[in-house]
Amino acid sequence: MCATWLSRCAFPFRIIDKRSNEIFTGQADGLQCRSLEIFQSFSESSFDFASLNQSWKMANHMIEMCFWSPNSNGQLERNSRVADTIPGISRFTQSVIHQGNIEKWFVDSIDYFSEGKIQIERPLLPVSINVKEENEGKSNIDDYPVEVKVVKVSSEEARPEQYGNKNVANGLFRQFDGDQDKSYKEKPASEEEEEDGEVEEEDCEIIHTKYVVGCDGAHSWVRKQLDIDMEGEQTDFVWGVLDMVPITNFPDIRNRCAIHSKDSGSVMVIPRENDLVRFYIQLKEVERDPATKTDNKKFTGNVDDTQAKTKGRIDRSKITPELILKQAQKIFEPYTLEMTDLSWYTGYQIGQRVSPQFSKFNNRVFIAGDACHTHSPKAGQGMNVSMQDTYNLGFKLALVCKGLAKQEILSTYQSERLKVARDLIAFDHKLSRLFSGKPMIPNSDILDGVDMDEFHQVYLEGNKFASGTIVDYEDSLLINKSKSKQDKNDDGDGDGLMVMNKLAPKIPIGRRLYSVKMISQADGRPIHIADRLSSDGRFRVLIFPGDIKQYPNNLEILHSFQDLLDDSKNFLKKFTPLNAFQDSVIDIITIHNNNRHEVEIFDFPDFTHPLDYKHRCDYWKLYSGKGDTYHEGKINMYDDYGIDPKHGVILVIRPDSHVAKVVPFSIDGLKQVDEYFKKFMIDQSNNVLASKPIDYDDSKRFIQPRLAV
Amino acid sequence: MCATWLSRCAFPFRIIDKRSNEIFTGQADGLQCRSLEIFQSFSESSFDFASLNQSWKMANHMIEMCFWSPNSNGQLERNSRVADTIPGISRFTQSVIHQGNIEKWFVDSIDYFSEGKIQIERPLLPVSINVKEENEGKSNIDDYPVEVKVVKVSSEEARPEQYGNKNVANGLFRQFDGDQDKSYKEKPASEEEEEDGEVEEEDCEIIHTKYVVGCDGAHSWVRKQLDIDMEGEQTDFVWGVLDMVPITNFPDIRNRCAIHSKDSGSVMVIPRENDLVRFYIQLKEVERDPATKTDNKKFTGNVDDTQAKTKGRIDRSKITPELILKQAQKIFEPYTLEMTDLSWYTGYQIGQRVSPQFSKFNNRVFIAGDACHTHSPKAGQGMNVSMQDTYNLGFKLALVCKGLAKQEILSTYQSERLKVARDLIAFDHKLSRLFSGKPMIPNSDILDGVDMDEFHQVYLEGNKFASGTIVDYEDSLLINKSKSKQDKNDDGDGDGLMVMNKLAPKIPIGRRLYSVKMISQADGRPIHIADRLSSDGRFRVLIFPGDIKQYPNNLEILHSFQDLLDDSKNFLKKFTPLNAFQDSVIDIITIHNNNRHEVEIFDFPDFTHPLDYKHRCDYWKLYSGKGDTYHEGKINMYDDYGIDPKHGVILVIRPDSHVAKVVPFSIDGLKQVDEYFKKFMIDQSNNVLASKPIDYDDSKRFIQPRLAV
Repeated sequence: MCATWLSRCAFPFRIIDKRSNEIFTGQADGLQCRSLEIFQSFSESSFDFASLNQSWKMANHMIEMCFWSPNSNGQLERNSRVADTIPGISRFTQSVIHQGNIEKWFVDSIDYFSEGKIQIERPLLPVSINVKEENEGKSNIDDYPVEVKVVKVSSEEARPEQYGNKNVANGLFRQFDGDQDKSYKEKPASEEEEEDGEVEEEDCEIIHTKYVVGCDGAHSWVRKQLDIDMEGEQTDFVWGVLDMVPITNFPDIRNRCAIHSKDSGSVMVIPRENDLVRFYIQLKEVERDPATKTDNKKFTGNVDDTQAKTKGRIDRSKITPELILKQAQKIFEPYTLEMTDLSWYTGYQIGQRVSPQFSKFNNRVFIAGDACHTHSPKAGQGMNVSMQDTYNLGFKLALVCKGLAKQEILSTYQSERLKVARDLIAFDHKLSRLFSGKPMIPNSDILDGVDMDEFHQVYLEGNKFASGTIVDYEDSLLINKSKSKQDKNDDGDGDGLMVMNKLAPKIPIGRRLYSVKMISQADGRPIHIADRLSSDGRFRVLIFPGDIKQYPNNLEILHSFQDLLDDSKNFLKKFTPLNAFQDSVIDIITIHNNNRHEVEIFDFPDFTHPLDYKHRCDYWKLYSGKGDTYHEGKINMYDDYGIDPKHGVILVIRPDSHVAKVVPFSIDGLKQVDEYFKKFMIDQSNNVLASKPIDYDDSKRFIQPRLAV
Repeated sequence: MCATWLSRCAFPFRIIDKRSNEIFTGQADGLQCRSLEIFQSFSESSFDFASLNQSWKMANHMIEMCFWSPNSNGQLERNSRVADTIPGISRFTQSVIHQGNIEKWFVDSIDYFSEGKIQIERPLLPVSINVKEENEGKSNIDDYPVEVKVVKVSSEEARPEQYGNKNVANGLFRQFDGDQDKSYKEKPASEEEEEDGEVEEEDCEIIHTKYVVGCDGAHSWVRKQLDIDMEGEQTDFVWGVLDMVPITNFPDIRNRCAIHSKDSGSVMVIPRENDLVRFYIQLKEVERDPATKTDNKKFTGNVDDTQAKTKGRIDRSKITPELILKQAQKIFEPYTLEMTDLSWYTGYQIGQRVSPQFSKFNNRVFIAGDACHTHSPKAGQGMNVSMQDTYNLGFKLALVCKGLAKQEILSTYQSERLKVARDLIAFDHKLSRLFSGKPMIPNSDILDGVDMDEFHQVYLEGNKFASGTIVDYEDSLLINKSKSKQDKNDDGDGDGLMVMNKLAPKIPIGRRLYSVKMISQADGRPIHIADRLSSDGRFRVLIFPGDIKQYPNNLEILHSFQDLLDDSKNFLKKFTPLNAFQDSVIDIITIHNNNRHEVEIFDFPDFTHPLDYKHRCDYWKLYSGKGDTYHEGKINMYDDYGIDPKHGVILVIRPDSHVAKVVPFSIDGLKQVDEYFKKFMIDQSNNVLASKPIDYDDSKRFIQPRLAV
């Protein structure tokens, strides 16, 4: 994700991976709404780009969640059904597909955006990382204070040992906590040599860089270099995972199911692409290896596993697909369950850990994803929250590296994402314990188990959180909540606390802008506003002038903005390099509340249909928020956002689509927008870009016509 | 399209092109609703296939059509606006994109479906075609009666001469009728040699084949071999085409516009992808070349051009972008129009021609597309109707070549498509003359011109035809209308005459099944039925058992079908090779009218959730036609199709989604389905396929799990 962002922003970088190509990749499969929105945001309709936007098409959409538990006779029965994704929270619904596809889409995207210039370099092992001292105040973006020493290793050395069944792909080589210790014992020769100081210098390369982002997993080498410990704990609950095509008379096998059996544990059913089904199965009988008791000095991790202390750790080599299936069959009783076409399996112990810091060395070195937070996989959060970490960081790095924004904005990465990680850990802690517990049987003697109603409630409240759509960033250089006239609420519906401006009471500040449709003034096409807010590194200023027919003064106000925007002292010109497209840093979009047949494009000021250096008009900056469409029904964006057509509003949207600031539709409001940018953007008045504006390519089609600088 | 169909059906063929790769391709740009539906039908959600389904994403959707003409003061003004695509006729709307994209998608699709085995072979020039005599009754599908002699030519020889401006891509080398003569004068040396009998035999290859399809354009070599003349005529109207980025103060430049000026002719504006706009501009002053008078013996085409006879033909080398633009500027007055980024131009004379025969030699050799019909481009029909020709032919060839169906079905290609071509010619004749004529000025002296109201009316009535969605095939081996209880109507709304069965009064027999949504019983996902009727070469039998709760007898009837379907004497087993998947020739889908929460999948007979040879269940044969969905609103397929939930109905759908037959939901109805297939399908009771059923590939994902035999 980080590489996709940086390549989309056309900023050079390298991406190194210590593993060879043939590695068994991780096996996450859930794509939450927000991840699908982000994927979509990297796709633009005029681009021949068929990677990340394939996700929605190829993944299996999960529509319904069914809860099964014992009835008062102890018989398994369907207790209730709910929408798997809460209706209305996103235009996408939770979907699932093998992680291999997602990795391929990213590789294709990086290749596409970088025009083939950037490839993953592997296997390349990092050996050391050094950051030159810099005085905080004097940090210079032109410096390359970070040195990373890397060594090329052979593909053979870069392959980790596979445990368990050698014939079926599985995740046993990496899913267990002990892997870290294991890998240090049995690490590739070259790594061993380095620790012994024996790496041949001629095999090494020193990479001089401005920044480093460590996306290197739960056993992060970068995190170790930063000397950051993970905080958290491990439970005794052991789970197995099977990806296979089931043969069963269970009627809900193509729905997501949470099944609590009376005595045999729980199953989560995740119907997957191509008739596969993933089963998360609670294991009851897994052998432990007494030699691995944690009071044995060999194991010095963060493990807080009482059984491990006294009985030793789970012996993962004893976890087989057959063992997992056998347990599943017990849970499914009286329904039958057999297995064909096993494609992957693994086993894991549930634990939750989070790193207290996401960066060090004055924000020169970052960690992201599993390197900062690990937890149980059943809520489908790991891959999603990890991708969203660098979706947060990537645009900030690009802005800073291009000299457009001050380095101070980088500190918002930790302040914004650490909170998300902690919320995630708390959510997972609660859900996984309820899911692993024995169920209470209504009207029976067994009343001390997990109350199914409580489980449902936690599940439903967690659903909004799990969708990734209510991630809420606090006040900072990049988010301005505190000056807003505020409405807050926390009515326990899972939405949490929200901060809104009264001018747009349905737009929570700090969250991603919820997408609704609007209509292009120029051609009448209805489009989702999110599709106009592509991930291309630009900020957006959305101007809502209201109804200009009923309130003609609003049109006058809108026209009065032209002078302010033309002034080189103000944000639009000031923060855009002299010879760049005028909208390549900040993109101004106007959305009126008139039927588009009532008004003409040339009624509006020039900045709503600006000309470029060839006098070509940009027709895609003026929209109608209201009207009947020919093919897609009624549109009413002002209602959707709670904006009064009499007063209007102005929104500032970050490159990651989070709402940064809400101000009145007025000259004063526009000046507040100016103040927002002046706090962290860098004056470009004297900056002339070396390269020409991007124009037609040889094949005579537009490429990236509005790419950020 | 033909190659995509055959490769999708996994049948081997060769595709040869006399032109080299670098050729300037034709420049159609319009994609009608039906073409988009067909493209979509080649895409299946579980396939990693990103070619034809890109069309809807990448093409510019045209939403609105604006009519401009002189008002009573002779001033150009917007007369009216209508939806460019009639709302409700398709889930797609008319869209436009450069033909080069479409050709690339087809090449990618052929490569994908054939797993890289089939590539276009070029430049390969056909030299002769011979068909061995066969007695009509004794024609044997195992024979290879056609011999095509081909010769490899160099890329240089395969490049046609480019006329006009050599620096800008243009279509002048091929758009004029005289090209045929020209190419015969200046054809590549190798072709010349052949006519002189001097082709070296060692450079030639003889291809022995069952069938040949000539998709070789307006000057079709194959058509000449078949000795078929085109019938039709040419007009005096001359038009120019410009693809460029306009600079203009005309407010509707991003809408489709028909502009009739008072004295300067007409313009059609087609807003394209990437800010391009295509202009069709009527030319007033084009020089003619007296040396090319048609009484000059050198020109012996079908030209019926009175001006050409006396004044000579248009001198195309005098048609320049500047000349076309100058005329456009006059038409646009008082609006300004300047040109940047010219990407293509051409000029043409309007004419309409159709071939009276589409095949010869007992349906061994076919012609399709421009080889059978040419006309003016403004209604965006040429590429669309041409693609639909072989979309009609392709599945029939595949069925016959695989030995599944009798050769007699091939004669339906001409009977079905010749009618479409003739309707198209008539439509184009009418529209292009109205569009090229001078407008009548209301309340003025100029009352003898084209009545704008009549023009609008013709345009609107033609819109349904032009969408390709009401193509209607007559009674034949493959379409059974005559035995239906019929409803007919022709209320002049552009729908034409329709034949319906009273059991499904909103489903015209012979037309493509209009797609509406249904809900998967297994997982609750709403899907368009068209997405369940993919173009994979299979027939479908759609069983609508109605409401099985309110009418329990309907469930009994449905259960009684099981025996009939299990019987090897009946269509399902009889026409499927012994070791093929049971649904690989005929796919049976059941759609009930109950809320899916009222019923369980196992309430229904086995054929609605059949098991394969590994006992894996196919969950994608049972749907609910009724219910509220979580995210996509209410669904009511029975209402949409006019089916009574008490009586139900059975539909037979051809592999091209056209409705073949409508029968009652009863044992008797199912027997009528049996009779339908027995008329043209071939008994497979003794046919054991050499290859195994297609199963997982090495990467452990399903590939083409339900591919036709």
